[in-house]
Amino acid sequence: MRDLAAADRVVYGYNKSASGARTAAREGFDVSNDLDATLQRANNDSALIVIAVPMGAVGFVLDEIVAKVPNCGITDVVSVKTPVYRAIKERGLQDRYVGSHPMAGTEESGWSASKTGLFVRCAWVITYDYAAECEAAGQSVPADWLRLFIDVNRMIMTARAETVPSQVRAHDEAVARVSHLPHVIAEALALVGDNGGVIAQSLAASSFKDATRVAGTAPELVRAMCESNAPALVDIIDEFIGRLQDARESLSGPEPSIKEFAENGHIARTRLVARSGARRGSVSPVKISSRPVLRFHPGGNNWLAQLKQAEDIGARIEIF
Amino acid sequence: MRDLAAADRVVYGYNKSASGARTAAREGFDVSNDLDATLQRANNDSALIVIAVPMGAVGFVLDEIVAKVPNCGITDVVSVKTPVYRAIKERGLQDRYVGSHPMAGTEESGWSASKTGLFVRCAWVITYDYAAECEAAGQSVPADWLRLFIDVNRMIMTARAETVPSQVRAHDEAVARVSHLPHVIAEALALVGDNGGVIAQSLAASSFKDATRVAGTAPELVRAMCESNAPALVDIIDEFIGRLQDARESLSGPEPSIKEFAENGHIARTRLVARSGARRGSVSPVKISSRPVLRFHPGGNNWLAQLKQAEDIGARIEIF
Repeated sequence: MRDLAAADRVVYGYNKSASGARTAAREGFDVSNDLDATLQRANNDSALIVIAVPMGAVGFVLDEIVAKVPNCGITDVVSVKTPVYRAIKERGLQDRYVGSHPMAGTEESGWSASKTGLFVRCAWVITYDYAAECEAAGQSVPADWLRLFIDVNRMIMTARAETVPSQVRAHDEAVARVSHLPHVIAEALALVGDNGGVIAQSLAASSFKDATRVAGTAPELVRAMCESNAPALVDIIDEFIGRLQDARESLSGPEPSIKEFAENGHIARTRLVARSGARRGSVSPVKISSRPVLRFHPGGNNWLAQLKQAEDIGARIEIF
Repeated sequence: MRDLAAADRVVYGYNKSASGARTAAREGFDVSNDLDATLQRANNDSALIVIAVPMGAVGFVLDEIVAKVPNCGITDVVSVKTPVYRAIKERGLQDRYVGSHPMAGTEESGWSASKTGLFVRCAWVITYDYAAECEAAGQSVPADWLRLFIDVNRMIMTARAETVPSQVRAHDEAVARVSHLPHVIAEALALVGDNGGVIAQSLAASSFKDATRVAGTAPELVRAMCESNAPALVDIIDEFIGRLQDARESLSGPEPSIKEFAENGHIARTRLVARSGARRGSVSPVKISSRPVLRFHPGGNNWLAQLKQAEDIGARIEIF
């Protein structure tokens, strides 16, 4: 909302919390505590609706949209896409829906934790399962859906993020690895550190604090993302435990060695930093993204194959 | 070295690497590549020798000290204290030794990664096993050792760190929890992220980057600390795997819930942040430590009991 307003786009919102709505309104943002009025206004404007609520509230919001907003395209910024897409399909909304997920944030939440520029150069996932389903069924993708896809991409561009296409399942497996697992690790490490008593607490320095930072997130939010992505996350936790057990075994012998583990981990970390986000060490004031870019035209020749290719190589897209 | 020089203390050093020594010398630091000459000079000055080498080189350095430096007190800044203290005792140097370990650093290493003020307000552990052993044997602690303890504390104060007393075994268990485990986690998480391919790499954001930051450390250094603390670390990895398995189980059922896990982890994290280092949110330009302080006089009435009490509560000490 801050980024769209800063770019002079018309943007307004609804907040269930009256005090939350007032806080934003006091800063000059057009935020209401009246859901019916907000949905009516959105319908009159044919606005793009952005659902930004915890997973548990998505069904309620969609029911309201079904009942009151026949005109609007829908996106969401929930961190798990499978249950959102299931809720969308249960209500037959898939031709009005393009999912999204910005990979940025802090351990803080609420309006006061938001800021203009939070999403600059972050990966912002855009989903396109409906288009793939149309293709698989031998149907052409409706023009309205293509316009919605372009509109969601425009919103992402306005926030100066990088649009990374992914289908729902691949997204959920990837975020289980790179986001939900780090949250589980942070909670478990905080518990193990705490179990060391005050001397361990006193000695905890930056390696510990960085690795547990996201345990500072409100527990309800951690629960919402981890529990709603449980099937993917359980598999990833098992993979992670397997790596730890390998390290543990190699430390248990008479001559402990984690040579391969430490060297391969170091290489993996180096590769990940090289691939995600802006290049470090660039002296140019214009930051160069290290994500490859794929320029395409939705609905153009071979466009869906291009989108899938972008997903396979973790590329960002630019629409022309 | 930078902090001591900045405080106008006489400080000089030896670096095995000729280019490393030259780099420091070009910045005006008194660093030599001649070990014999440096040790001779230290002996003539009755200097405090600070051993800052990887664990694998400690034995060699101690042998050189035994052969050439009868006069000097010894400390070290190695991250694991049990094998250092074993090497000290094997050479009968325990009455000339007070171990230490500053809990600060980055994933970088080498002279260029050092900076003045790196240790400000960090916990800097000081060990006192020899004094405890003297007491257990019914012997009084030699005055020379007490002077050495005071001298090491003075060095720590000069770096503006906080002196936290700990015996060797308690230190090694605590750092296995709060430092070596985070390093193992970072390597394992980097491998799991990498295994997700380019889409996972592209989506990795701050939670992943923070949790894997220390996998950027040179693998030899990670190996040196983890392998030399293997017995304590294996137990801690097992404890951590146990926590992960609990979380995994609670995510595997028909109604996944990590309510307790997330809430307890959040509380643990909050407590750890409250206890370690400077208070956040203080508006005073004088940062207040959140570690309790215990003021005492080495050799004074009940001083060893006070030191043990400080260790039990993770306190910093001030010597008067």
